[in-house]
Amino acid sequence: MCSLPVPREPLRRVAVTGGTHGNEMSGVYLARHWLQAPGDLQRPSFSATPVLANPAAAAACRRYMDRDLNQPSPPDDPYEVTRARELNQLLGPKASGQAFDFILDLHNTTANMGTCLIADSAHNVFAMHLCHHLQLQNPELSCRVFLYQQPGEESYAVHSVAKNGIGLELGPQPQGVLRADIFSRMRALVAAALDFIELFNQGVACPAFEVEAYRIAGTVDFPRTKDGDLAGTVHPRLQDRDFEPLQPGAPIFQMFSGEDVLYEGESTVSPVFINEAAYYEKGIAFIQAEKLTFSVPALPSLTPTPTPVP
Amino acid sequence: MCSLPVPREPLRRVAVTGGTHGNEMSGVYLARHWLQAPGDLQRPSFSATPVLANPAAAAACRRYMDRDLNQPSPPDDPYEVTRARELNQLLGPKASGQAFDFILDLHNTTANMGTCLIADSAHNVFAMHLCHHLQLQNPELSCRVFLYQQPGEESYAVHSVAKNGIGLELGPQPQGVLRADIFSRMRALVAAALDFIELFNQGVACPAFEVEAYRIAGTVDFPRTKDGDLAGTVHPRLQDRDFEPLQPGAPIFQMFSGEDVLYEGESTVSPVFINEAAYYEKGIAFIQAEKLTFSVPALPSLTPTPTPVP
Repeated sequence: MCSLPVPREPLRRVAVTGGTHGNEMSGVYLARHWLQAPGDLQRPSFSATPVLANPAAAAACRRYMDRDLNQPSPPDDPYEVTRARELNQLLGPKASGQAFDFILDLHNTTANMGTCLIADSAHNVFAMHLCHHLQLQNPELSCRVFLYQQPGEESYAVHSVAKNGIGLELGPQPQGVLRADIFSRMRALVAAALDFIELFNQGVACPAFEVEAYRIAGTVDFPRTKDGDLAGTVHPRLQDRDFEPLQPGAPIFQMFSGEDVLYEGESTVSPVFINEAAYYEKGIAFIQAEKLTFSVPALPSLTPTPTPVP
Repeated sequence: MCSLPVPREPLRRVAVTGGTHGNEMSGVYLARHWLQAPGDLQRPSFSATPVLANPAAAAACRRYMDRDLNQPSPPDDPYEVTRARELNQLLGPKASGQAFDFILDLHNTTANMGTCLIADSAHNVFAMHLCHHLQLQNPELSCRVFLYQQPGEESYAVHSVAKNGIGLELGPQPQGVLRADIFSRMRALVAAALDFIELFNQGVACPAFEVEAYRIAGTVDFPRTKDGDLAGTVHPRLQDRDFEPLQPGAPIFQMFSGEDVLYEGESTVSPVFINEAAYYEKGIAFIQAEKLTFSVPALPSLTPTPTPVP
């Protein structure tokens, strides 16, 4: 997706997916609400489609039933492989002309990530303009942009089934808990994202800008015993400090035996997803990100096309 | 347990149970740590036994495998029924002379409960003195006492297998997350509780005192659709306000449709366990408690008995 072209036509097929992880409650309940009351998702030039991405996991209030929907599929056939095929049928097929134009994929984290906008790369010009719009519309939220794609890596994110997409990652919220403040914030962000797509469809051009973004640079696991069990956890001085600079020599873990583990990297990084519940099983205590500034070129305006009568 | 007599002999058989709910991580990892390094649990007159109460659920990082260990057992045979029988064998049998003298049962909540000490009733004189000791030793924690037993109700709490016991309920901590601050706080509380038992065993008497405690008075469910789904969630003005007075007419829920639901009770209550993840399936958005003051009589000193050689 590194050189993803900007759209030449209005985006008419837009989806909002919640419950890709069934215990991330803001998206689960927004999707369920919109399936009953889709009016919120209508704009003059399109209506976004709400999708409860993993209904079995949402019903069980678990991240997934058999395996993570956001991971590559093995050849066997657990529930999520079947569901990924269905989503690919509904919203894709991936990399085809029939695929949806854009997906907003809704997530929560137990980490203190605030409002985080997740895109594949800064080269995704349309996604960067959407993120910038959300930042400008919500200055009080200090929306941060996290770029998850490492060079040469294929994306398995649910929104990669469509031609384009971003994720919204809001926290901190415990798994299985629906906080009203985060629910309202996610709802407002989705509304603003759909408004941006509407502006684009109406032929509004957007000037070039510079954006600060956090790009994934690596992951750090918890300290473990020789049996693989935790031997300590995130240090109180790192806990809840997502996006803040972490300098070499600063404490990152507190061992159960009492001593501190210091950060041994060579340069300052920005830790994100610090102590995210779902990442224990992935061997990730936090993700190391680099804070970078990118120049994003202008988004040219579409030649306005008439809005189809519904 | 309403007229539980105070112990006449030293408490020698003491257990500390963690992982009764397998995704409440402070107790899971303290139990695992103490099973490897039991020195923390030794006192001159006794050694407390660490127990990982629900090892299968802890391994899966789930509250339970088939059913909650803190609930009455049905006649069928899922994992937790078998495990409850094993715990009754190990720490009981319940209501027998062979039962353990005291159990500390370690829990976390996603609610903003701070440091909460859970006892069956204010008539449990020994437990009330232990709670009072923890309050005096940790004035900065403002430890609150919650009394969970309703009149005439049998207790199914894990610590009811023993002759006596209390629960420690620390939050807020998401399920599946181990926070260093809460881990350290729980560890210090367990140490102080064992110190109190040691003092008692050594023949120290405790004078009468008055204690403020919160006694369960009822539960309030979320607003729901006719299909039983959530129709709203805890209001931002109630969220995180555990133990604070809730007055009639104050908002308690925010509906997805936008309007507020007001509290219609007749008198001021103290909500606790507000928006606890594990209680959604129980139909509990929060527990209503009454704030009461109880007079607790003096705890008479034991006639000192010699410490047995191990």
